[in-house]
Amino acid sequence: MADRTGTLGPGTFGPGTLGIVAGSGGLPRRLIENCRAAGRPVFVLALEGEADPAMLAEVPHAWCRIGAAATGIDLLHANGVGGLVLAGGVKRPSIASIRPDWRAAKFFARIGLRALGDDGLLSAVIKELEHEGFTVIDAGRLLDNGAVMPEGPLGTLGPDPVARADIEHGLRIARAIGALDIGQSVVVQQGMVLGVEAIEGTDALLRRCGALRREGPGGVLVKIEKPGQERRADRPVIGPQTVAVAAEAGLRGIAAEAGAVLVLDRDAVARAADAAAIFVVGVRAP
Amino acid sequence: MADRTGTLGPGTFGPGTLGIVAGSGGLPRRLIENCRAAGRPVFVLALEGEADPAMLAEVPHAWCRIGAAATGIDLLHANGVGGLVLAGGVKRPSIASIRPDWRAAKFFARIGLRALGDDGLLSAVIKELEHEGFTVIDAGRLLDNGAVMPEGPLGTLGPDPVARADIEHGLRIARAIGALDIGQSVVVQQGMVLGVEAIEGTDALLRRCGALRREGPGGVLVKIEKPGQERRADRPVIGPQTVAVAAEAGLRGIAAEAGAVLVLDRDAVARAADAAAIFVVGVRAP
Repeated sequence: MADRTGTLGPGTFGPGTLGIVAGSGGLPRRLIENCRAAGRPVFVLALEGEADPAMLAEVPHAWCRIGAAATGIDLLHANGVGGLVLAGGVKRPSIASIRPDWRAAKFFARIGLRALGDDGLLSAVIKELEHEGFTVIDAGRLLDNGAVMPEGPLGTLGPDPVARADIEHGLRIARAIGALDIGQSVVVQQGMVLGVEAIEGTDALLRRCGALRREGPGGVLVKIEKPGQERRADRPVIGPQTVAVAAEAGLRGIAAEAGAVLVLDRDAVARAADAAAIFVVGVRAP
Repeated sequence: MADRTGTLGPGTFGPGTLGIVAGSGGLPRRLIENCRAAGRPVFVLALEGEADPAMLAEVPHAWCRIGAAATGIDLLHANGVGGLVLAGGVKRPSIASIRPDWRAAKFFARIGLRALGDDGLLSAVIKELEHEGFTVIDAGRLLDNGAVMPEGPLGTLGPDPVARADIEHGLRIARAIGALDIGQSVVVQQGMVLGVEAIEGTDALLRRCGALRREGPGGVLVKIEKPGQERRADRPVIGPQTVAVAAEAGLRGIAAEAGAVLVLDRDAVARAADAAAIFVVGVRAP
């Protein structure tokens, strides 16, 4: 994939190496590939239980568990990281499983444990990393322009009036769900909310909605950015995998918020949509 | 179970037989048992694919599919039904699967198909049945006083401060979910929303949250009445089965809206809660 914006060259976000804190999903791999193609030196801090080991083969990297903040920060400094991007999903850990080291414990003591369930946690993490001297960057700025969902269909199909009504209803519901910091996605079929995403993730939501679907015109996945979302963490993403799972679940299409949702490999998404005969459309949230 | 309120005697809700339109779950069986114990004549219109055939063995009844409104109404009239109660769950059917007869088609033509996804549908159904001369009764009025969730714990256990915080958060979320006409239940653990109920039902929600649970103190099921809910249809219910499934899913307790959620067999629920060492508590929604 070409770097159409030229933002990936060395030095664009301060001197030194770009650090990638890598969670689950396809976004970290895409960032690594783009940086390497652009000749940008990169260091990956791979989160245990989240990051895909396969993408790390030829990249400077270290593994770190989520609670080991001191180790993680030391590793980033030791590898000359200046700009830092948080990419991919992280299952919010429980209080018991996080086993904070002294650095993480200090952090939690300051922000309070109650924040664990909130978007506020991510903002606090970012503030903390900036106090440590890192420049935390929105992953969207490290991808080419095509990585942000445009308005309109990606493949050849678009929504018919029934699907458009489902999208409209889904946007309203997703907006409310997002404002409550519950999740980013909903599935609507013929005006009925088949499922609402909480912490299970979009793929799990799609799979269970497959079993709940009604006869007649299939449902629509609506995925948006939470109102007030911290863009430098937890950006909503769709990719070819999302299209495949949605099609398997009997959905007729995917509506993603234009200008907000990231698309991993737009061409592959369009091809997957056409192959499965479903639509993938970028829509403006109301 | 004793009829402490004396509302079940013949003639209390107009002359004639009490009609029970029976969906899924334990509520229809409980109503049938109570009516028979009170000597009230009863006729059950059992909804295909929803009602449990086992409860119908010795009761005057007929089966009817949801789209066959004319047949259903004729059956109720032919069996001398005056008062009518809608009891138990009904999976909202799709437009394609409902196969409306002329009576149902006329109804849908009048209210518009868009209402299929809304609580408005239930209100419209009730209005229609009242135009037909039936007195539609809240199922809660046909159960004894103990069937409505009281404030405070039913068994010996109650929520500790962590659980109380989860209940508070759950009530806020459930209220919002209900206002959007999505569902009645949520599961919260340590401040995280593990799952939100849409059309899958409470048992399915609990089962999937079992797989999503975090280490440490378990979660809480919060079940409430939707704001503005039509009480004569789709009343939220918990029973011994809910307690068993919640315990299996690793939850620490259930909080149900006092004065709103119906409890099928309060004693059995208290015993099940104590046996599983979880709490079942009635709470006032904010």
